[in-house]
Amino acid sequence: MLALAKVSPGPGATIQHREIPIPKDNEVLLSIKIAAICGTDLHIYSWNHWAATANVQIPGIMGHECVGEVVDVGKNVTSLTKGDRVSVETHIPCGHCHLCLNGKSHICENLQLFGLHTNGCFAEYATVPEICARKIPSSIPDEIASVLEPLGVGVHAAQKADIKGKRVAVLGAGPIGIFSASACMALGAESVSISDIQTSRLKVALECTEVTTWNPISVKSSDVLSGHNTPDVIIETTGNERALQEALPHLRKGGQVVLAGLFAGNVALNLSSDLIFKEATFYGIHGRRMWSTWDLMEDLISNNKLNIKPALTHHLSLEDYAKAFQIAHSGEGVKVLLTP
Amino acid sequence: MLALAKVSPGPGATIQHREIPIPKDNEVLLSIKIAAICGTDLHIYSWNHWAATANVQIPGIMGHECVGEVVDVGKNVTSLTKGDRVSVETHIPCGHCHLCLNGKSHICENLQLFGLHTNGCFAEYATVPEICARKIPSSIPDEIASVLEPLGVGVHAAQKADIKGKRVAVLGAGPIGIFSASACMALGAESVSISDIQTSRLKVALECTEVTTWNPISVKSSDVLSGHNTPDVIIETTGNERALQEALPHLRKGGQVVLAGLFAGNVALNLSSDLIFKEATFYGIHGRRMWSTWDLMEDLISNNKLNIKPALTHHLSLEDYAKAFQIAHSGEGVKVLLTP
Amino acid sequence: MLALAKVSPGPGATIQHREIPIPKDNEVLLSIKIAAICGTDLHIYSWNHWAATANVQIPGIMGHECVGEVVDVGKNVTSLTKGDRVSVETHIPCGHCHLCLNGKSHICENLQLFGLHTNGCFAEYATVPEICARKIPSSIPDEIASVLEPLGVGVHAAQKADIKGKRVAVLGAGPIGIFSASACMALGAESVSISDIQTSRLKVALECTEVTTWNPISVKSSDVLSGHNTPDVIIETTGNERALQEALPHLRKGGQVVLAGLFAGNVALNLSSDLIFKEATFYGIHGRRMWSTWDLMEDLISNNKLNIKPALTHHLSLEDYAKAFQIAHSGEGVKVLLTP
Amino acid sequence: MLALAKVSPGPGATIQHREIPIPKDNEVLLSIKIAAICGTDLHIYSWNHWAATANVQIPGIMGHECVGEVVDVGKNVTSLTKGDRVSVETHIPCGHCHLCLNGKSHICENLQLFGLHTNGCFAEYATVPEICARKIPSSIPDEIASVLEPLGVGVHAAQKADIKGKRVAVLGAGPIGIFSASACMALGAESVSISDIQTSRLKVALECTEVTTWNPISVKSSDVLSGHNTPDVIIETTGNERALQEALPHLRKGGQVVLAGLFAGNVALNLSSDLIFKEATFYGIHGRRMWSTWDLMEDLISNNKLNIKPALTHHLSLEDYAKAFQIAHSGEGVKVLLTP
Repeated sequence: MLALAKVSPGPGATIQHREIPIPKDNEVLLSIKIAAICGTDLHIYSWNHWAATANVQIPGIMGHECVGEVVDVGKNVTSLTKGDRVSVETHIPCGHCHLCLNGKSHICENLQLFGLHTNGCFAEYATVPEICARKIPSSIPDEIASVLEPLGVGVHAAQKADIKGKRVAVLGAGPIGIFSASACMALGAESVSISDIQTSRLKVALECTEVTTWNPISVKSSDVLSGHNTPDVIIETTGNERALQEALPHLRKGGQVVLAGLFAGNVALNLSSDLIFKEATFYGIHGRRMWSTWDLMEDLISNNKLNIKPALTHHLSLEDYAKAFQIAHSGEGVKVLLTP
Repeated sequence: MLALAKVSPGPGATIQHREIPIPKDNEVLLSIKIAAICGTDLHIYSWNHWAATANVQIPGIMGHECVGEVVDVGKNVTSLTKGDRVSVETHIPCGHCHLCLNGKSHICENLQLFGLHTNGCFAEYATVPEICARKIPSSIPDEIASVLEPLGVGVHAAQKADIKGKRVAVLGAGPIGIFSASACMALGAESVSISDIQTSRLKVALECTEVTTWNPISVKSSDVLSGHNTPDVIIETTGNERALQEALPHLRKGGQVVLAGLFAGNVALNLSSDLIFKEATFYGIHGRRMWSTWDLMEDLISNNKLNIKPALTHHLSLEDYAKAFQIAHSGEGVKVLLTP
Repeated sequence: MLALAKVSPGPGATIQHREIPIPKDNEVLLSIKIAAICGTDLHIYSWNHWAATANVQIPGIMGHECVGEVVDVGKNVTSLTKGDRVSVETHIPCGHCHLCLNGKSHICENLQLFGLHTNGCFAEYATVPEICARKIPSSIPDEIASVLEPLGVGVHAAQKADIKGKRVAVLGAGPIGIFSASACMALGAESVSISDIQTSRLKVALECTEVTTWNPISVKSSDVLSGHNTPDVIIETTGNERALQEALPHLRKGGQVVLAGLFAGNVALNLSSDLIFKEATFYGIHGRRMWSTWDLMEDLISNNKLNIKPALTHHLSLEDYAKAFQIAHSGEGVKVLLTP
Repeated sequence: MLALAKVSPGPGATIQHREIPIPKDNEVLLSIKIAAICGTDLHIYSWNHWAATANVQIPGIMGHECVGEVVDVGKNVTSLTKGDRVSVETHIPCGHCHLCLNGKSHICENLQLFGLHTNGCFAEYATVPEICARKIPSSIPDEIASVLEPLGVGVHAAQKADIKGKRVAVLGAGPIGIFSASACMALGAESVSISDIQTSRLKVALECTEVTTWNPISVKSSDVLSGHNTPDVIIETTGNERALQEALPHLRKGGQVVLAGLFAGNVALNLSSDLIFKEATFYGIHGRRMWSTWDLMEDLISNNKLNIKPALTHHLSLEDYAKAFQIAHSGEGVKVLLTP
């Protein structure tokens, strides 16, 4: 089969021909229909500081967002059969630690990540543990099904904070930012504003949901996030220190911050004025709840409350990976899909 | 009357003779029985960077923690009469902003602080707004009544996080740290450990409540905050960047951090590993709830669930202020009281 | 002035000519623009069992939902001046009890109700405590402003339960039912179904918001509240024992019930199967939060998220009170307004 | 093996000799060390209305509270081996429904109960699904390990309501009542009072934890649950309608009620005055969280925060079952243990 692999530390990736893998007892084999490029894949592709220290399996097949069809099942698999269409939950829990036993398996003490610590889905076939394969209703088309994993991060962000009737500012109009903004509007936020330094991404956000947008290059955040628009909630998806530093002083007293974007290094925060005097709350989020976020997400899609189609801006063949990565990296596209 | 005033920017303070103030329509005049030195007073006394930028009223009488007797009342005062014994809530709310109207007056949008933005209580008499004068049951002795305000910060910390059945690590065994540890044990924490670089303060903590202690100078936090003692909750009261940085990596996944200590400058945090991957929650707290924290605190004291007497290590005359500040500053004492 | 008064126990009410009242020190005098009939008024008018035991002031002027203009202020009033347009919050808190001091003044230990324990607003003029007079933005028209008090009950119901992404069933399409349904949709419910035995009211509900409707006379609740439509949340607004009894068995396990409608007598509940085995939660609500519900409600109206105009089905002159009460009582109308 | 079985509808039970069962693939075989009699067993033994309609498997071996040693394992069992000492969680979840997938498997949509819908533990051996067998630390003695299941109900009750710093009234001093009271004190309740019509049970409660007690036969609840002792939280464990009806009017406004005891039939409640006007919250609980309650319970025991030994009042041989049931039924004992 064709697969896009990271074969050594350093920038880039390599198309390889590999054997189709055989599922272990607790695994299923998927024929990948569509995969999608995540920010994490960009880090690994460009091999930045974070990637170099993130314990990435090398050599290994890249990719973790996808939809596929079950074509083989291990002998202990009971909940899935050949022909099932599934999306993959990237977080592979151990099932035994105190977090797994307490409804928080998505942050399992022994968490493994699909496509990072294991072979992933930028390939014609992939094996995934049964526990991470989510059967998807037929009403959800393949393209949407391929990005449920990152969509789940946005829905989880909107679940984590109390956004009901609140003013939300989302930092960053990449996939996670746009998905968060869409989820907040679907789940009862009073209003959402979203920022990005790429005007093209703000346009995509406007196609997806009812937001106001601002480009911090051309307008000051103090002009946008003030008065009646002072945010009750900030959702940070950029991983950019300065974006966070500029936004925090505008948070309302008693407000909430959800941090989803990964920062490459330390972040300097004025905790006294931005957290303590305000009695603010900062929530870190990683992934999405298994499986309440998925349940909710599918309900929202079924009831036409999430319109994320415009965010799927590009769709290429896996063999065009270099171009696909360039589009995703440049910010020209929002979500870039790959068909193996 | 005798008063300890800050008469100009720069280190130190000055004993003055002043007129006894006259309460405004919504104020009461207190004859101060006992006042107590807070960390904030130390900042103002030594005139550090924080003090220089904190909008301190100069000239002004210092001090905000106290118990006193009402000796005069303004004409609009309805809830207090001469002879009432009261403690002072430092946070002076406006009563009109959205936070005041929503049960969060302690972080009022237009918050004024007694003894910082107004004349305070290091004096024989002080005027305070009726809204900040809390009548205290006679069962609570004067010494305890003089420190209800900082005790409230500790109780508020224990209210803010979900500490029921949890392992708590408290950073710093100054007054706020010891009060937080005591409140956590009173309110159902599974266990509490507390750190300080002054062994004498750890001894005081042990006299107050059932904690384990560690001195980060002599033992590594990784030896203390690991295995079965991995903390579910960290309460930070030092305002020391390094203390926080060293403790955070030990926080359990899904854990909570309460930040009460003020940091002089920016704090460099590894948000990705210490907040985001862990799905941790950081809560800032400032002061205490008006008045649920006070209600709870008085109940805990009445039911003998808080034993803070050992933390009141020194009691001097106001005229001995220089010595008192030196004791408080050096960490030789925990809570230092002053009688005008 | 003209006023509709309850002059003695028993059915009916009487139009009287009275002196214009003089506001006390802490009161304002309102010139009533529009008042609205509440279910409570129907109880008092028909003088049922509840009314007979509810401590209604007799003789007294009826009515508590209204918008008016401030035409005089008592000498201690500071937040309002002549010409201000205000709605009235029916709940008059004491300001001193532990609930008032803890952000729950709407259920004050010493609660008085405007128009029930005091003279009300079915009159040309009424006095109200400053603390209950809410200034209303000019963007909200008089008709809407006259029903903010009952609209607040619906918004409070939607705030009380966790409705974000949830399926909600509302029992009763009277004003509170329709307002609750509208608020749930505005605040992120996945879907809302609403029941009533009057088809005309269900039509009004459909005009106000995006709901599904059912008439329990013609369809079985088991046909409606099952399968994918099994409710996560039930909001009960009928005060009808049978409506509640029929709905509860359909509540999802782990579900929530908000009880807003008043029951005339005891209600027989199968607590074992409907509450305990399901680990359900029942929330009673009374009125609305002061003032977070009002803040949120005004925001929702400003952002065009609540369309309650169709529920204001009738508007009569105060002198036509008999007809107005008949329309409200029969269920022919939803909300019936009165102009003095 | 020896087993106590329900062989036909109607009062009583029968000692039988049976084959030792063989565990299925996902089951373990336990050699039962100690079992304990639950209120549910009393219902089934006396065959009251509840039992007759509860879908009890007949013929079937009774009993569900126990500690035992694993002596055989099914071929798919991975987490347990021979020699492990385990307690049994009565709730057998399906593992696939939305509640199982959302951290609420203890109220699984397809819940089966061990010893009710399956053969139970009043026998020398019993098979249990691996998913319900909880390995117990060796520091917990057998007698305590045999009652962790009902102790978990008490701990779950104390987890469900917000009891931190609150006054709690527990109705009933049977095992669940005493365990609830003990857990509330361990988890930070301000104070706990407990009622029972059997003075002997109140004595046991006093031996277990620091409570006040009252016997509703000799004192009026209005004398006990008033003034400073007005309860913030009521935990109902009697299943007695009158006990609940008498207590509810004393609940503080804004208070919480946890309902754990099963009622044989409908319960007549004055919802308007006892739930709605008070904005009270009623929580039903069933069993305990899997596995957060178990984790917490074991921590509390390890830290000597639960002293339930005095509640284990009797310990008989399984063959003396008739006497054991009589002791449990009469209320002479609190928790009655059986050794097969």
